[in-house]
Amino acid sequence: MAHKSWQDRAAAKVAATAAKIPEHWRISSQDHEKARRQKDLTGPFIESFLFEKEVAIIRLDTVGLVAKLGTRALRCVDVAEAYCKTAAIAHQINNCLHEIFFDQALQRAAELDQYYDEHGKPAGSLHGLPVSLKDQFHVKGIDTTMGYIGWIDTFEGDSDPNKVHKIESQVVSDLLSEGAVVFCKTSLPQTLMCGETINNLIGQTLNPINQGLSCGGSSGGEGALQALRGSSVGLGTDIGGSVRIPAAFCGTYSLKPTHNRLSYRNVANTNPGQLNYPSSVGVMGTSLASLRIVMTALLGTQPWLRDPAVVPMPWRSDIEKETMARVDGKGSATGKSPLRIGLLFNDGFMAPHPPITRGLRMVQSALEKSGHDVVDWDPPSHMDAAQIHLEFLQSDGGYYIHKQLALSGEPLITPLREIFKLRPPVSAITTEELSVQGRTSCEAYSDYWNSKTSADGREVDAFIMPVAPHAAVMPGRYLYTGYTEVVNLLDYCTAVIPVTRADRAVDLVDPGYKPMNDADAKNWAGYDPEAYDGAPVGLQIVCRKYEEEKVCAIARIVSMLIENHT
Amino acid sequence: MAHKSWQDRAAAKVAATAAKIPEHWRISSQDHEKARRQKDLTGPFIESFLFEKEVAIIRLDTVGLVAKLGTRALRCVDVAEAYCKTAAIAHQINNCLHEIFFDQALQRAAELDQYYDEHGKPAGSLHGLPVSLKDQFHVKGIDTTMGYIGWIDTFEGDSDPNKVHKIESQVVSDLLSEGAVVFCKTSLPQTLMCGETINNLIGQTLNPINQGLSCGGSSGGEGALQALRGSSVGLGTDIGGSVRIPAAFCGTYSLKPTHNRLSYRNVANTNPGQLNYPSSVGVMGTSLASLRIVMTALLGTQPWLRDPAVVPMPWRSDIEKETMARVDGKGSATGKSPLRIGLLFNDGFMAPHPPITRGLRMVQSALEKSGHDVVDWDPPSHMDAAQIHLEFLQSDGGYYIHKQLALSGEPLITPLREIFKLRPPVSAITTEELSVQGRTSCEAYSDYWNSKTSADGREVDAFIMPVAPHAAVMPGRYLYTGYTEVVNLLDYCTAVIPVTRADRAVDLVDPGYKPMNDADAKNWAGYDPEAYDGAPVGLQIVCRKYEEEKVCAIARIVSMLIENHT
Repeated sequence: MAHKSWQDRAAAKVAATAAKIPEHWRISSQDHEKARRQKDLTGPFIESFLFEKEVAIIRLDTVGLVAKLGTRALRCVDVAEAYCKTAAIAHQINNCLHEIFFDQALQRAAELDQYYDEHGKPAGSLHGLPVSLKDQFHVKGIDTTMGYIGWIDTFEGDSDPNKVHKIESQVVSDLLSEGAVVFCKTSLPQTLMCGETINNLIGQTLNPINQGLSCGGSSGGEGALQALRGSSVGLGTDIGGSVRIPAAFCGTYSLKPTHNRLSYRNVANTNPGQLNYPSSVGVMGTSLASLRIVMTALLGTQPWLRDPAVVPMPWRSDIEKETMARVDGKGSATGKSPLRIGLLFNDGFMAPHPPITRGLRMVQSALEKSGHDVVDWDPPSHMDAAQIHLEFLQSDGGYYIHKQLALSGEPLITPLREIFKLRPPVSAITTEELSVQGRTSCEAYSDYWNSKTSADGREVDAFIMPVAPHAAVMPGRYLYTGYTEVVNLLDYCTAVIPVTRADRAVDLVDPGYKPMNDADAKNWAGYDPEAYDGAPVGLQIVCRKYEEEKVCAIARIVSMLIENHT
Repeated sequence: MAHKSWQDRAAAKVAATAAKIPEHWRISSQDHEKARRQKDLTGPFIESFLFEKEVAIIRLDTVGLVAKLGTRALRCVDVAEAYCKTAAIAHQINNCLHEIFFDQALQRAAELDQYYDEHGKPAGSLHGLPVSLKDQFHVKGIDTTMGYIGWIDTFEGDSDPNKVHKIESQVVSDLLSEGAVVFCKTSLPQTLMCGETINNLIGQTLNPINQGLSCGGSSGGEGALQALRGSSVGLGTDIGGSVRIPAAFCGTYSLKPTHNRLSYRNVANTNPGQLNYPSSVGVMGTSLASLRIVMTALLGTQPWLRDPAVVPMPWRSDIEKETMARVDGKGSATGKSPLRIGLLFNDGFMAPHPPITRGLRMVQSALEKSGHDVVDWDPPSHMDAAQIHLEFLQSDGGYYIHKQLALSGEPLITPLREIFKLRPPVSAITTEELSVQGRTSCEAYSDYWNSKTSADGREVDAFIMPVAPHAAVMPGRYLYTGYTEVVNLLDYCTAVIPVTRADRAVDLVDPGYKPMNDADAKNWAGYDPEAYDGAPVGLQIVCRKYEEEKVCAIARIVSMLIENHT
């Protein structure tokens, strides 16, 4: 085994995973070919592989599923089968899974049905809900490769039989304790430090809405699977945009909480010891309400009692209610406290492509027409913040990443060859100086936020900005993650919502645009209305730290407004 | 100026500070001599320098002061004068201050009186309350030397006139916004990394209760001043025991919150960039209620809106009430949920001296007699946790400390010569590995805590242990800070309460004790019933992270029980 090439090990693993798809869910070579030529795999295309009953189930969102499962209007086994089958098709046409454990999921679903029959009640608030997981979360009995070939059949590269397949991420245990059914783990880029999903194990996952584009990353398989309705909700992680980018690129929703709101205990990671600016566990789903239901279920288990890194803060419904009380049923301002929203169109380093700018204008118009305040958002440099953040990610000189690569001899993926090449680590003096810079940046940003309070004392509730300077990116053209990375330095909470789709008839090239710098020119030159046509435009709504309840409420309001004004 | 020796600069600074004491508050050389020969300077001794009216004021605790100031039963100027004068005497007999700004305080007190007269109400919840500050907090117009001679007349060693004396710690601004009066800054050890208070500026601060002993550190001047009733409440900081040790040694109270409950913004620090295991701002006072009133006032200002590092968690009175509802007016268990308290007598590395063990037995007996559960506390090694913590403190190889020393040429203080001698910093790889060790330790401790839940599901509410393996230590004999440092690694919240005093007639030497190791033998050999006689015995009550409300309530219950059972 140890003498096999990394290529052989990868191929064996991919074949073994594919073999876990039951015969009757495998698609023909003609269908494979058809899918390859199809631009958009979502909706009618993938549904054509399903029975009507299954289509009805996968069209439900998490809330619909939980409601029907909780009253036995749907049986867990039927729901699990519909999602396992859809995920199986999704993987065959879109290459979005790392791990398949449908057998385990179906068995658990049967046990949950039995539980309900015996006890006359659901086993928990997520009774029977299929939940997909980014391949960073440990599930008992299942590999976590995180895209590293050297992690196959190990626990994060360690072959100790007391660890391999024995450890479960706390957040997974907590989902299970609420009755969820986990059934697959989704693809991600090697190292997680990439806005596209590419690794030496499965190759690459593309955007199922437009196969000429990327599904984003690092929780890319999750975004792709959800766009295909192979999952209504799942967990990702985000250290530089990783739950936000795939949601924006795949037209779904996500929430990146402040980092210690959800448990990271026993979750594999890129640099497990880089705790200065750590990654957040986040939720991704096909509706906003999906995110909320998982947040409330997880926080309802009091995760802080088992993971001391989690802040003991239950889901605060009062904050949601207060926010929703400021608008009517269509999202319009009612009383004396309209929303006060900052809008950032351009971070001064890289201008967004026309579809993104149009999406922002739509939001602006919808907010203004509905009586809300929109204020310009011209904060301290996002580029500088992203730079500090990047220096933390690089501080060990790529040591931990290259240690994992060395296990199998696989190379770094191309987009990361420069940024994470092995170099000497920085010293603790440097990380301390960087920490001071980081803290100072966060304080300056907070001061800026406070400076935008209205004359009559109304604070800015949130600001809205692009997730990236483009819609779902053309493979290999992700040049700048400053729009997302700044939020990780600040550790603010963020929700991503889809706003519109790129439209070649409307989102024309502006040949007169004067680029701000070379990178901006390069990004601007990469805009092609034909290639981007149909790509989702997602935006991020950013609230301060620990305001997950508020950001979800504001996302709901903005979504309502967009719907009512377009 | 730059050519002066550090000794000359220190002497000039000390003289300038002394000169700020008004003539009529200066004591005679006979009184100086008398004080020098006096074992206990507190109570009758210091009160002999005060008028009866002043004694009545300084005998009040914070709550009493705030109540009387808030109703104009006392005027701010009278209260400020009483405290300034007492602090002036305290400094002359006990050497516990770094900065004196009585003039500024008295002027502010006058303005507050005027405010009340004009508006018919107090200026805030701390209207007129004198608050002392450890010399780490910046006050406009005043030096912060933090014991570094190179910081005299600078902002943390920086001579930029836009910074020097212009910056105010946010927590100070917040206190002032609630009407507090700041009036002096208290002594601390050079670097803050010492359990005694000694620096090259003022020399040393001894324990005013027993001048043969240390007042503790690093917030040592604060503990000493409060024991002398020169302040009813003040702010300190704690990265290894620094608000707990002086409170325990000086017979006062303190609260070390989880680190991001109170603002550290614009507070000087030892290694401002060591944010992995950061210091907490804590409260020290002459009563438990003092701590609570300052916590509620500060959190009432929503400090997280100005310091993004602070967690947005208001003071949760419901948690306090729930805890107090479990006992009757004397602290005895009432219903089905008695307190469940872990008791740690000995951490397995260094056994506490007889007075501390007796204090713990008193607590055990009082809890058991009052119907509470006491459970043995035998957690993962505190010594190991303290070692990981220490490695973080040393990770920059003493770089930042020596940079400050180099500003004046002063040497490191003797107790730190080895532990903080200049050495190469560790690399980011090492800090990442240490971070994983730290996180794993915290998880193991949390698991241990959960393992002590009773068969019927009642969790341990808190555990109680020594603050140090001795009462107020003999100068130069502080060998081990493991009892406090473990709590900083865990970032748990802790309250210190006085329980008893060392008594030569009761706390006899046990010549049969078999030391666990050489360090234990050395500490054990250092116990001298005569020398320690009268030294306060304080214990720490430890709750999980962010349970400041609960730890204050439990401290109140334990204090009541001790009072009722002795």
